Amino acid sequence: MLQISHRGQMMPPSPIRKLVPYAEAAKKKGTKVYHLNIGQPDIETPAPMLDAVRHFDFKVLEYSHSAGNESYRRKLADYYAKVGVAVHYNQIIVTTGGSEAILFGFMACLDPGDEVIIPEPFYANYNGFAVEAGVKIVPITSDIRNGFALPPTKDFEAAITPRTKAVVICNPNNPTGYLYNATEMESLKELVIKHDLYLFSDEAYREFCYTGTHTSALHLKDADEHVILMDTISKRYSACGARIGALVTRNKAVLDSVMKFAQARLSPPSFAQIAAEAAVDLPDNYFDTTKAEYESRRDLLVSRLNKMEGVFCPNPGGAFYAMAALPVDDADAFCQWLLESFSHESQTVMLAPASGFYGTSGLGKNEVRLAYVLNKTDIAKAMDCLEAALKVYPGRI
Amino acid sequence: MLQISHRGQMMPPSPIRKLVPYAEAAKKKGTKVYHLNIGQPDIETPAPMLDAVRHFDFKVLEYSHSAGNESYRRKLADYYAKVGVAVHYNQIIVTTGGSEAILFGFMACLDPGDEVIIPEPFYANYNGFAVEAGVKIVPITSDIRNGFALPPTKDFEAAITPRTKAVVICNPNNPTGYLYNATEMESLKELVIKHDLYLFSDEAYREFCYTGTHTSALHLKDADEHVILMDTISKRYSACGARIGALVTRNKAVLDSVMKFAQARLSPPSFAQIAAEAAVDLPDNYFDTTKAEYESRRDLLVSRLNKMEGVFCPNPGGAFYAMAALPVDDADAFCQWLLESFSHESQTVMLAPASGFYGTSGLGKNEVRLAYVLNKTDIAKAMDCLEAALKVYPGRI
Repeated sequence: MLQISHRGQMMPPSPIRKLVPYAEAAKKKGTKVYHLNIGQPDIETPAPMLDAVRHFDFKVLEYSHSAGNESYRRKLADYYAKVGVAVHYNQIIVTTGGSEAILFGFMACLDPGDEVIIPEPFYANYNGFAVEAGVKIVPITSDIRNGFALPPTKDFEAAITPRTKAVVICNPNNPTGYLYNATEMESLKELVIKHDLYLFSDEAYREFCYTGTHTSALHLKDADEHVILMDTISKRYSACGARIGALVTRNKAVLDSVMKFAQARLSPPSFAQIAAEAAVDLPDNYFDTTKAEYESRRDLLVSRLNKMEGVFCPNPGGAFYAMAALPVDDADAFCQWLLESFSHESQTVMLAPASGFYGTSGLGKNEVRLAYVLNKTDIAKAMDCLEAALKVYPGRI
Repeated sequence: MLQISHRGQMMPPSPIRKLVPYAEAAKKKGTKVYHLNIGQPDIETPAPMLDAVRHFDFKVLEYSHSAGNESYRRKLADYYAKVGVAVHYNQIIVTTGGSEAILFGFMACLDPGDEVIIPEPFYANYNGFAVEAGVKIVPITSDIRNGFALPPTKDFEAAITPRTKAVVICNPNNPTGYLYNATEMESLKELVIKHDLYLFSDEAYREFCYTGTHTSALHLKDADEHVILMDTISKRYSACGARIGALVTRNKAVLDSVMKFAQARLSPPSFAQIAAEAAVDLPDNYFDTTKAEYESRRDLLVSRLNKMEGVFCPNPGGAFYAMAALPVDDADAFCQWLLESFSHESQTVMLAPASGFYGTSGLGKNEVRLAYVLNKTDIAKAMDCLEAALKVYPGRI
């Protein structure tokens, strides 16, 4: 009898997609569903990026360089210089989405059985890449009561074993929206240097910082061998479907190793690299409008949530997510109930239960993640739904 | 001291790219280099595919479905029906190139330490995907003297151990160009059923069969649970940079497992799916011209090679590669010498030494792979160079 692999069995299903059948059923019944469950922004992709793709002039859609087009990497180096990160273009490997940057980083630096420490809640797909690489994620818990700030160094040190090889952070954070400050980043640097660990830094939401400024892991001094940046244009330019990311590091051995993984899959997508290259030429004020829009959505969402009885939502410093504690018995059941058994003026809201973002079983049972990727009118209506729902949910506590 | 992973060290560099620095140096000296070393076709990508991308009309470049756009998968099912393969659109998962289909297939079906049997010489990047998945490739040798026909069943059976989980074939074959016939495919079917193995079938070159017709692994009766098809549009439509492939299987457990890997990386590239969908609407005679062109190139290349003293090149039945045995001491050294120390009328030729395509160390030392991806004028000039080179190469035997 043929079996799928143990690895295939271990592979987690997507926690943010498991409610999709219930959403589809709700829509079939005529209920409008506000999607706050997934990080697919509604912001238009900048026209110059789309136009650049419309106006390509090649006749053969060829493989690009395995590390990405040199012209794009050179521009990316300029982009990083603008955000205070000095890197040479050949310290950048263009990847198929940030996803591939994470996978390549894990593959090149970690062996099966190695451990990585990640503050939880964390981006759920790290679980999938860890299974693919055979790596064990060791979660250390951050707390909604202090807005999911970086756990203290002693918590990291208590989790370190001889198999610990890396710390993974996402800054600003998905799913919490927390923005690690310079002091927290310095403490991480001291930790990884002291214990000889890699620091994988997922900075997909770098441009969206509302409270304070962004400290990139590549801003840290004297940590060049340790820091591996995972990046993507998906959120930065509302271009999720491009599947263009980057792995950036000053560690030559890691670069050389990642390059071999990049060669095995030949090249990142060619059309999307054209869009990505055009993005670097957007005016410097491009992010002002987008950031202001997200910030005003955040303000609306967070204030509405905190006005609801029994709800607590810390104000996130960045990204476009908020985590909220709800007065419910079980957020998984509540989110399903919202789709299956509830509507308010023929509308309902889809949220992501937080349990899938925790590595420790049983945590986050009363928490949800909300992505503020809809316009304010829709966010207000979604909040109306949530408010009404919490008043009548049978599992309210 | 931070180390890259053992896996990262095991990862093989690309054997077809290791000579690139020598080619670049030759070009700097003013020597024209004919590239027969890499499977990047010069054939133009069909205009309707490129035009479809030029005329996209979305404003937000969104994630697609993790399995690929449903509209594309439905059309792909029609495409497969045309080549005699009956599959439902939800038995197709669109991947980021054929590369990802191979990786996902390995990940979902094989565990670290499992073994896959592959007739050698084989596509060198299988080595990379095997390292990523922790899988051991067990090569069984095919022979240039019979054109690299499928080795006899007893050779497969002698290689089977308790850890053997799959056989991998590429049909028509890269690098040999051999086209497995219906009898060979039936014998493979009996083998995988008898020993309860998966049959991974890489059919990237399906449309390019010159001698005989193509037998897809999905044509085989009563092997639905065993067969996993890895496919790509890269060669079929000269669209290597699209990075669009597919994993196709009727095995539900494998599909469900692969889907989890697909969800972890979110989606395949969006722009290129537009091109891929347009490709399915190309007129049925689209391949006639391309196939005729490749066939005439093959005829020229093979006849020129076999006219050279001491050279033997079996006539390949498909794909756009030929393997040739040369009267040289070491094909790696010869290919480097061609770039570094030789020119004929200020021209030379770049070939892929065959050693990188063998799993067994020491095999293929006098063989090279030639990709007939240049027009006939250039192929003739490249053959002039090779012929002249073989007359003066110091390591000729």
